[in-house]
Amino acid sequence: MSLSKNQLKLITSLQQKKYRLKNNLFIAEGTKVVNEFLNSIFELDQLFCVDNSNYLHIENVTKISEAELKKISTYKSPNNVVGLFKIPAVESIKSEGLILALDDINDPGNLGTIIRLCDWFGIDQLICSANTVDCYNSKVVQATMGSLARVSILYVDLEIYLNKMNLPKYATLLEGENVYKTSLPSNAILVMGNEANGISSEILKYLTNSISIPRFGENQQTESLNVATATAILLSEFKRGM
Amino acid sequence: MSLSKNQLKLITSLQQKKYRLKNNLFIAEGTKVVNEFLNSIFELDQLFCVDNSNYLHIENVTKISEAELKKISTYKSPNNVVGLFKIPAVESIKSEGLILALDDINDPGNLGTIIRLCDWFGIDQLICSANTVDCYNSKVVQATMGSLARVSILYVDLEIYLNKMNLPKYATLLEGENVYKTSLPSNAILVMGNEANGISSEILKYLTNSISIPRFGENQQTESLNVATATAILLSEFKRGM
Repeated sequence: MSLSKNQLKLITSLQQKKYRLKNNLFIAEGTKVVNEFLNSIFELDQLFCVDNSNYLHIENVTKISEAELKKISTYKSPNNVVGLFKIPAVESIKSEGLILALDDINDPGNLGTIIRLCDWFGIDQLICSANTVDCYNSKVVQATMGSLARVSILYVDLEIYLNKMNLPKYATLLEGENVYKTSLPSNAILVMGNEANGISSEILKYLTNSISIPRFGENQQTESLNVATATAILLSEFKRGM
Repeated sequence: MSLSKNQLKLITSLQQKKYRLKNNLFIAEGTKVVNEFLNSIFELDQLFCVDNSNYLHIENVTKISEAELKKISTYKSPNNVVGLFKIPAVESIKSEGLILALDDINDPGNLGTIIRLCDWFGIDQLICSANTVDCYNSKVVQATMGSLARVSILYVDLEIYLNKMNLPKYATLLEGENVYKTSLPSNAILVMGNEANGISSEILKYLTNSISIPRFGENQQTESLNVATATAILLSEFKRGM
C-alpha cells in the first residue's frame, strides 16, 4: 500500500477548519499523541504509518514511506504516524459545576494549555466563543495530548449562552475583587478574555462578579499575566477549597 | 547612515550565547519591547531603526532601510527597530524572601513566562542552573517584554548554590504534600524541574520539603501540568497569604 492522491488531498485539506468541519475529521501526529487518541473515546477514521508493527490489530492502516510521511506531516521531523480521528458529536450544555468560558482566545498554544488545565482541575465544561481558535487545529491537538479527549468542549454564541445560563458569572479583570479574599462558589462560570483585548464589552454586561489576581511586585509596570497562566491561578483558586 | 558590515556581523553573532557573553550585549526588537528597555535600568549600546522620529534624543542611532531591517531581524515582519543593550552586571545572591530556582528549563517560552510571573509576584530572585536556557536568548527577551529589567536573575551551579543556602528548599513533585494544605514560609527557595525529566536526582538531595498540586479530574491520566503553569499556581500559593 501507499498513499493515494485522494488521501493526500484529504489530509492536506484537514489543516483548514472548514474541511475539518466538512469531513468531520481532525489530524493527530506522532506515536505518543496518536496512542493517546487510540486509547481514548475518540473514534479512528484511518492511520498512516511508516512502521506498522504496533498497529497490526487496527483496520484502516496505510503503510507509507518516510517521504510520504514528510508530505503529510506538519513537522520537520515527523514521528512515524499520522492519524485521522472523528470529531465527536456536540456535547450537551452543563448547568452546574465549574465551567470555564473563553471570549475569543486566538493563540493555539494558549488554548492547548487551557485544555490541559481543564483536564487537571476536572472542569465540567469548556465553553468557547465562536471566534476562539478551533480546538481541532493541529497545533492545539499536539499541545493538549490526550487532554482533548477528556474535556467537554463546546463552541457557542457566547452572548446567547451567558444570557441563558443561571449561574454566577465571574469576569477576570485587572481591577476586580482580590481573588484571594473572595469566597468562590463551586457552581459558577469563569470567563477569560482575549489575549490583547481582554473580555469584550458585549460579554461584560452578562457577568455578575469580577475578580483579579493581585500584583505583588513593588513597581506596577508588569503589563498583565498571560491568559493561560492567569487561568491556571484562577482554576486553582476555585478548586483549592474543595 | 546605513548598516556597516561590522554592525551586521555583530548583530547576527548576538543570536548565539557565546557572542552575547563575549560582547556583553543582547538584542531587543520592535517598538514596544525596545521602548520598555529604554525606559528601564538597562543601558543602551546602539539602536537601528527605519523611522527614527521617536529616537531623535538618543545617541548611537543608525537609520537603516526596510531591507536592512529584514536582514538583522529574526521576525518575518519586523517592526521598525532593533536595539542592542548591555547585559547588566551579575546580581548579588539574596538570602531571604521567596526565591525561585530552575533546574535546567529548556524552552525559551517557558522561561519567558516564568520571568513575567516573577515580576508579577515580586519574587526576590530567580536562580537558573547553568544549563537553563539563556535569559538573553532573543525569544526570551521578546516573551518577557520589560519584565526582564525588573527581575534579579542569576545563573549558578545549582548544586553548590543549594548546598550553601540556609533556607527551606521546596521540591515540586507529582507525589509531594498537597500544597493547598501546607503552611508555606515567606523565606524559601522553590525549585522547579526540567520540562521532560523534572528535578534531577543530584538536585533532589539538597531539598528539604516537597509539595504538589492536587489533580481534580476523575480520571488520572493527565500527564502533568506545563512547568510554567505549575510555577504560576505555586507562586500564587506562596504569596496569597501575604
